[in-house]
Amino acid sequence: MKKLVIFALIFSSISVSAQQARKDFKADRNLSASNYVAYPTPEKALTPAPKGYHPFYISHYGRHGSRYLIGTRDYDRPYLTLLKADSLGKLTAKGKEVLRKVKLIKDEAASRDGELTLRGAEQHKGIAHRMITNFPEVFEGKTHVDAKSTVVIRCILSMENALQQLLIDNPKLQIRHDASYHDMYYMNMGDKHLDSLKRCKTANDALNAFKQKHDNYDRVMRLLFNDDNYWKNEIKAGQLNNSLFKLASNMQSTELRNKVDLYDLFNDDEIYDNWLKNNAFWYIAYGPSPLSGGIQPYSQRNLLSKIISEADSCIALKHPGATLRYGHDTMVMPLTCLLDLDGLGKQIDDLEQLDDQNWCDYKIFPMACNIQFVFYRKKFGDKDIIFKVLRNENEATLPIKTDIAPYYHWNDFKAYFIQKLKDYQP
Amino acid sequence: MKKLVIFALIFSSISVSAQQARKDFKADRNLSASNYVAYPTPEKALTPAPKGYHPFYISHYGRHGSRYLIGTRDYDRPYLTLLKADSLGKLTAKGKEVLRKVKLIKDEAASRDGELTLRGAEQHKGIAHRMITNFPEVFEGKTHVDAKSTVVIRCILSMENALQQLLIDNPKLQIRHDASYHDMYYMNMGDKHLDSLKRCKTANDALNAFKQKHDNYDRVMRLLFNDDNYWKNEIKAGQLNNSLFKLASNMQSTELRNKVDLYDLFNDDEIYDNWLKNNAFWYIAYGPSPLSGGIQPYSQRNLLSKIISEADSCIALKHPGATLRYGHDTMVMPLTCLLDLDGLGKQIDDLEQLDDQNWCDYKIFPMACNIQFVFYRKKFGDKDIIFKVLRNENEATLPIKTDIAPYYHWNDFKAYFIQKLKDYQP
Repeated sequence: MKKLVIFALIFSSISVSAQQARKDFKADRNLSASNYVAYPTPEKALTPAPKGYHPFYISHYGRHGSRYLIGTRDYDRPYLTLLKADSLGKLTAKGKEVLRKVKLIKDEAASRDGELTLRGAEQHKGIAHRMITNFPEVFEGKTHVDAKSTVVIRCILSMENALQQLLIDNPKLQIRHDASYHDMYYMNMGDKHLDSLKRCKTANDALNAFKQKHDNYDRVMRLLFNDDNYWKNEIKAGQLNNSLFKLASNMQSTELRNKVDLYDLFNDDEIYDNWLKNNAFWYIAYGPSPLSGGIQPYSQRNLLSKIISEADSCIALKHPGATLRYGHDTMVMPLTCLLDLDGLGKQIDDLEQLDDQNWCDYKIFPMACNIQFVFYRKKFGDKDIIFKVLRNENEATLPIKTDIAPYYHWNDFKAYFIQKLKDYQP
Repeated sequence: MKKLVIFALIFSSISVSAQQARKDFKADRNLSASNYVAYPTPEKALTPAPKGYHPFYISHYGRHGSRYLIGTRDYDRPYLTLLKADSLGKLTAKGKEVLRKVKLIKDEAASRDGELTLRGAEQHKGIAHRMITNFPEVFEGKTHVDAKSTVVIRCILSMENALQQLLIDNPKLQIRHDASYHDMYYMNMGDKHLDSLKRCKTANDALNAFKQKHDNYDRVMRLLFNDDNYWKNEIKAGQLNNSLFKLASNMQSTELRNKVDLYDLFNDDEIYDNWLKNNAFWYIAYGPSPLSGGIQPYSQRNLLSKIISEADSCIALKHPGATLRYGHDTMVMPLTCLLDLDGLGKQIDDLEQLDDQNWCDYKIFPMACNIQFVFYRKKFGDKDIIFKVLRNENEATLPIKTDIAPYYHWNDFKAYFIQKLKDYQP
């Protein structure tokens, strides 16, 4: 059994085939959780740098780690729906069991709306430790780490868990850390025009039709309720299904994960259908979907400009250290697409094709997902700067030519992306 | 001159006399800044513990470090008032100079509403470093630090600056850090009944009469404006004075402190009068003033209960480490009064008597002010637990008898304060 799982995981990472996600979920249901997936430790080996080059600077943007759900209604609504049904004698034995589980989950999350979990804290310690272990030259001696977070507490605590780990690994580090509205224009940019495109009629109609097609919860409702008329007419069954799937998805974030399982409510088809709907939503809202204008990834244009300009000013220094930034999935996903990392910037017209074309949200923005630019040079003062991009700590491709893959020439990158940002028309 | 200043400082710390604050401000104007005073490094030596006793646990509550002002109107209002006056030709040369200074201050604080400053970060590193240096046994080896902050970013970053310093001093520390609404019921308790007493007619009338008596800004207005009629009738001169005094007060928080001075606007009498009004406000709103019910310090009853219960559960452990909590002046001040540290819980009927009776806000809650309970025992398992309280890192007295001052017996403390909390009637 264990061998089978390992085989499936390896297979999923090297091959793209029809409905690959369905196979991935068979190996690990937790992967169907979209943005609630717990950060997977990277397993691929890193490619040594071309001869003579040494890493000297890292520029990073990462999402907070695993967290509780946002909005108490995520916990309260399914709980109250089941509680009421129970009081009316409408729950099956399974329904009563689910009610008990939901109460446990809700109580554990009380007053912790959206907060970082212990697992989330550990993810950031791990990422930071691997960063300093894999690139010790960047963090050597009394160098600087400039860390910034959005003003959201789970991001601040993610940053601080990373920084504590770095300090344990090198107590000499000179750390500046901040979480200020002053920096939100690039750390978490708002863009009303892009937001309006997300919600335009074309996008809404397509998403709603897709969702309707993949609604798949009758069997689950019959598992929970002893009265078809009740769940069909007295409650919002689709909403309850979504809530329960969301609770199931996020169990992996908390310390209850080995004690309470809600995935047992769903069969493989239902898990796949639930995920399909969420994946389509994310592709439209934050990906390069033509339905929402094909330009959503430009929401990260300020962030990309800042990454470029800060890198240039750090390249001018002998031992710049690292620039670390902590934010959200809603930045990492569009930035991934804007950079077209591993081809994820591609436009796909048919929402049914997302999985087949390997645009799968869980591979893009698990909790604590991150993008790291690692810069190399032969010696200080050289004009010849190369770098690679790590996407969730795995080497990623860029849409530019290179003779040293997975490394790229910084000047090629700048030429391409500064032009791309210039060409952007809202 | 230097000798005089040193003499004044020593004098202020050992003696209470008529209008001591006035003398303190002559030695250092920054002290008139009430809750904006930068944390003063403690200078008094600590008393060795009775023979055979060793420190084994610290319980702490501290305020965030120096910060920017809260509310952009603190910056915008005086700026716009002066700008408009300038456009009407109503400013003197000095008024124009002040306008330029206010613009500098306002620009430096842009988008940093209430945020921790660099100086604030340094204060917390210093406090943490002295804590682990003075009580190394508490933090020895692989022990635990449980740190909690209110959900306000300047408090979180204060906590994290302290924790980073502790980790530099002992990388083996096992740190839990959190900032959750889950803990706000004691970290920053709200109490509507007490709030209503703060604003009752008795309190309001007394405060307003006191403020009116000490309004003292005609000379400053004549310095700023070339037209008496203008400042008397076209602007709110009292409000402008207060704003400028607040800006002057908080200059010590930022990196502009050695470059821009606004205190030069005020003479000694004006500084004293401005402070008197602020001190009276704080005594009524958060101190034990009879005008606001004499019970305001009970706003910290949950915090005190938590300090007691957490201490008891930590005493049961062999090597508990430390419990660190990070919040606000509006907790540290009433907690100081509830504990009656150094007699600061005393009720004073006449607001004119506050200074003479040594109830001076700047000695209670500078930025980063803190209260530390340091626990000692001879060996693990002993029932005989003693402790001392450090108030801003200086040994403080409690309103209970002791044969080992400045140390106290923990059981005596509990007997007294658990009864005190029980007797509280809202």
